[in-house]
Amino acid sequence: MKTASKNLIQRIEPPFWFSDMHNPELQILFYGKNISQCQITIENSSAITNVKRTDNPNFIFVTINTRIIQNKIFEFIFKLKNKIVFIQKYELKERRKNSATRKSFDASDVIYLLMPDRFANGNDNNQNDSHLNEKYNRELPGGRHGGDIEGIIQHLDYIQSLGATAIWCTPLCEDNEKEFSYHSYAQSDVYKIDPRFGTNEDYLRLAEEIHRRGLKLIMDYVTNHWGLEHWMVKDSPTPDWIHRFENYTQTNHKRSTISDINAAEIDRFVCLNGWFVPTMPDLNISNPLVFTYLCQNAIWWIEYANLDGFRVDTYNYSEPEYIAQWTKAITDEYPNFNLVGEITMRNQGLLSYWQKDSPIGKIQNYNSNLPSVMDFALSDALQIVFNEDDDSWDQGITKIYDLLSKDFLFPNVNNLLIFGENHDSKRLNQIYNNDIRKYKLAMTMLATLRGIPQLYYGSEIGMAGDQNLGDADIRRDFPGGSKGDENNAFNPETRTECQNAYFNFTSKLFHWRKTNQAVHFGKTTHYIPENNIYVYFRHNSNQTVMVIINNHPENQEFDTKRFEENIKNFTVGKEVLNHLTFKLSAPISIEGKSALILELE
Amino acid sequence: MKTASKNLIQRIEPPFWFSDMHNPELQILFYGKNISQCQITIENSSAITNVKRTDNPNFIFVTINTRIIQNKIFEFIFKLKNKIVFIQKYELKERRKNSATRKSFDASDVIYLLMPDRFANGNDNNQNDSHLNEKYNRELPGGRHGGDIEGIIQHLDYIQSLGATAIWCTPLCEDNEKEFSYHSYAQSDVYKIDPRFGTNEDYLRLAEEIHRRGLKLIMDYVTNHWGLEHWMVKDSPTPDWIHRFENYTQTNHKRSTISDINAAEIDRFVCLNGWFVPTMPDLNISNPLVFTYLCQNAIWWIEYANLDGFRVDTYNYSEPEYIAQWTKAITDEYPNFNLVGEITMRNQGLLSYWQKDSPIGKIQNYNSNLPSVMDFALSDALQIVFNEDDDSWDQGITKIYDLLSKDFLFPNVNNLLIFGENHDSKRLNQIYNNDIRKYKLAMTMLATLRGIPQLYYGSEIGMAGDQNLGDADIRRDFPGGSKGDENNAFNPETRTECQNAYFNFTSKLFHWRKTNQAVHFGKTTHYIPENNIYVYFRHNSNQTVMVIINNHPENQEFDTKRFEENIKNFTVGKEVLNHLTFKLSAPISIEGKSALILELE
Repeated sequence: MKTASKNLIQRIEPPFWFSDMHNPELQILFYGKNISQCQITIENSSAITNVKRTDNPNFIFVTINTRIIQNKIFEFIFKLKNKIVFIQKYELKERRKNSATRKSFDASDVIYLLMPDRFANGNDNNQNDSHLNEKYNRELPGGRHGGDIEGIIQHLDYIQSLGATAIWCTPLCEDNEKEFSYHSYAQSDVYKIDPRFGTNEDYLRLAEEIHRRGLKLIMDYVTNHWGLEHWMVKDSPTPDWIHRFENYTQTNHKRSTISDINAAEIDRFVCLNGWFVPTMPDLNISNPLVFTYLCQNAIWWIEYANLDGFRVDTYNYSEPEYIAQWTKAITDEYPNFNLVGEITMRNQGLLSYWQKDSPIGKIQNYNSNLPSVMDFALSDALQIVFNEDDDSWDQGITKIYDLLSKDFLFPNVNNLLIFGENHDSKRLNQIYNNDIRKYKLAMTMLATLRGIPQLYYGSEIGMAGDQNLGDADIRRDFPGGSKGDENNAFNPETRTECQNAYFNFTSKLFHWRKTNQAVHFGKTTHYIPENNIYVYFRHNSNQTVMVIINNHPENQEFDTKRFEENIKNFTVGKEVLNHLTFKLSAPISIEGKSALILELE
Repeated sequence: MKTASKNLIQRIEPPFWFSDMHNPELQILFYGKNISQCQITIENSSAITNVKRTDNPNFIFVTINTRIIQNKIFEFIFKLKNKIVFIQKYELKERRKNSATRKSFDASDVIYLLMPDRFANGNDNNQNDSHLNEKYNRELPGGRHGGDIEGIIQHLDYIQSLGATAIWCTPLCEDNEKEFSYHSYAQSDVYKIDPRFGTNEDYLRLAEEIHRRGLKLIMDYVTNHWGLEHWMVKDSPTPDWIHRFENYTQTNHKRSTISDINAAEIDRFVCLNGWFVPTMPDLNISNPLVFTYLCQNAIWWIEYANLDGFRVDTYNYSEPEYIAQWTKAITDEYPNFNLVGEITMRNQGLLSYWQKDSPIGKIQNYNSNLPSVMDFALSDALQIVFNEDDDSWDQGITKIYDLLSKDFLFPNVNNLLIFGENHDSKRLNQIYNNDIRKYKLAMTMLATLRGIPQLYYGSEIGMAGDQNLGDADIRRDFPGGSKGDENNAFNPETRTECQNAYFNFTSKLFHWRKTNQAVHFGKTTHYIPENNIYVYFRHNSNQTVMVIINNHPENQEFDTKRFEENIKNFTVGKEVLNHLTFKLSAPISIEGKSALILELE
């Protein structure tokens, strides 16, 4: 029989923890050859509340009550046959002041979504890591292109100058897949930033630099799966740590089975337990050890890196009951913390189902606890309507009117993430063939509709990309992100005229948005589109904004009489981007495929 | 000053009433020149609880408490300056036994929808009426073609032989428009069957003949509007009896404004108050006199003609609060009475909103009280999917799977009216170019999906018609409905071979449906379509039906293992139309574009 030996501990997760958390319980995973044979104690303490061994002798899970621990640094004593074989120090760090009550992102923010590998390479010395499989190859569309945390830090001023107030980076934890590792959604170590992006300390520095500018950092968290190369996939604590099948079983992606009273059980089972792709083993969050591991890992990152929010990947591919508990565990620690879930559903009833306190979820006594969901229904519409000149009945711009008419289905429309595109979708500038008029229409609506706008890196300088050529083409390198790039779009002087046209419009729009609370949290009143003109108002007791979307290709003039319930006693509309003034008593003229944002006075 | 004179009463509505109703109050309208000058009493009685005069001197509304009335026939005494000028007898008829607790239609029924003018002409002596504008003209597609109640009565055996159990006739009340009067949705007298269809007594006889066969009669009731020629549109009791506008204002049809928290008030106002078409003035149901008039008129027809249900036209074009009260007034009288509302909405959340006790309506504390809504979402899908051979993700037959996956949004899916077509839609045989395979697929789904199937006259003998040519083409005359018709499709001997193929299939299918309670009220379990095959089960504790829809153009074979949670210990499936037997342990082979219904044993 093999026995545990001294210096046996290969992994401790979490590597450290924090004192004075809301939940005093902490489950610490010790990993090492035959470690489960050891007895574990903490000297002069009854802090250990549970010790869990599994069929795999290389794991031991120790649960402690952190409230009982006296010292910030204390020792776990590992014994074999009552003889000490190893002593392991463990630290409970002090929390930042007001950590628990931290604010998060909301509808007053504008989120800039970027893919770190494709954004900017700030450090030429971390292109490769000797322990990791995939090497730098910028020639390969789906390869690693060298972008890193340092590159983001170096361009925070750029992001700020655009008017964005929060940054969502796609994942940064280690992904040791042999190919396509650049997206980092197939993670191999969830306590460690991928060395090709930087170090944990670099990530902390990114957060600090972001906060120094008054911006916010949103982490992309993945609860549903890890990568095949994750060390606990290769040597799992329990056989059911991940969902395993005789033959490879992919999810059917039909998350409607979750709420469908007619669904076959097998379809629901495959939806939730099947793997997302062959390289992403599906985590069994219903296993209490996995569940606690994922809660703690998420909280660890918030506390360690001082995060302002989560974007949660493939949210409803996880068992609904447990993902809701996971979410609650986080908001129990951080009551104001916002999490936006990727719910790729197009039906608003089903989308609403997944937002916290949903009346639709309530039909089945389900509450996801998830504060924010992504408005894929609106995104779909923004990806098509400006190419549609027919507005009859439910066509063209009326699609957006019709979508907004179902807002009552949501418990909190202001906490919908609204977007025209992301790293998984078609790019707006591709769809609209770089017709900047249509780009402006989409951005105007994002800036003025209810919800939290999210931009996607590169579009603000006119970047396109064809999804039909593969994901890599919608995730092209930002021009100027690497040394030697011919074009540097980060810098106004080196941008092309066209890039400046895109950038300047976007920047002006979103800088204006910061100043207007009515578009953040005001009520929406909208009018049935007529003659391809969609008019809506955002208003609160202090401010009224009138937004006019002319989706007709030609110039049009319209009378304002129809809108009198919102125009009230206001006499003029101050156009916010070019500072034109419109008399509200006279007909308003508007160019084809253009928008006007008027602050009423 | 003009004075009321003897014999002044031109109209009394309701013309009579019934004793022992749940609601003892009865509002009687007396109409006659300057009648409002009269004092009205009932001798030796305090039954009159209210007398309402309006600005129009030709009306007086008298409310009585029918419980206080002693005699079945009693007298209203009209006086001028204390001198009796007129005595009007009024009758409270006895109700049929168990009238209040009458049963209604439900998911065990199959409804046959017909347009009386286009179905069959049973009486050549009522083609025209000297008092009514539009004359018989069968040459005119949108003209009157002579169909009548007698024609329906003469073909009840035909309808019964098809396997239908309930008949919904489009309206039969008088419509005195100068053109397009055949559909009778622009009614000029809502207490009178249009003489060109027959008499009130004929309608009563129709009900009796229907009941004699164990069938049910559903009346098409219109609450939203009357016709321009209605006598109370020409001489209205109050100016606000109908919604009036300076310039003609048509409804915008956007009934989403009703629940839309973002909707402009003006849009909601125009939706509800604007006219459906220029010939259909919009009734102001929020006027208490109108409201009571409409409640009583509906109840009068139920009680008079012994009806089994209502189909309510343009249900949610009426003010939501009042249409809900109207519906409740009816179900307060007849607790088991079913009403199906025409809710032409495609989003299931919005459709659900309008069904009684809806969790969606509840979001806004709204309860329509309407037991049944029409499933237009399913209808749209049935009108297209059998022409779509691509079933990827959300396409083709998967559209129906996806629709059914949202059943949890409805408070009562068994009380959805399901249909492939009606008098306002494209015709299935036109869409499917008389490919009988596709017709059979649609009918099979109607016969086996949850809800109350509704057929549309003529399709069962292969009738087509192109909506692009106008409504008249989807409302063609049933062949054999008029003397001298070349082809008589009512009779198996004179049907073409093709007509018999359609009829015999339909008849066999719906006769089988009567025998199987699992398809009436059983639970549905469905499986994500694979390889263009959609499999679902209807099952209760006694019966399990397996339905297989192969929407692939080619023959396919599939394994049954995936369905084991429903197949359980059953070993064979007895195919219900051709009595084939399928072993469930072996793969099942199914022809292209075909369906199998198996009763499992």
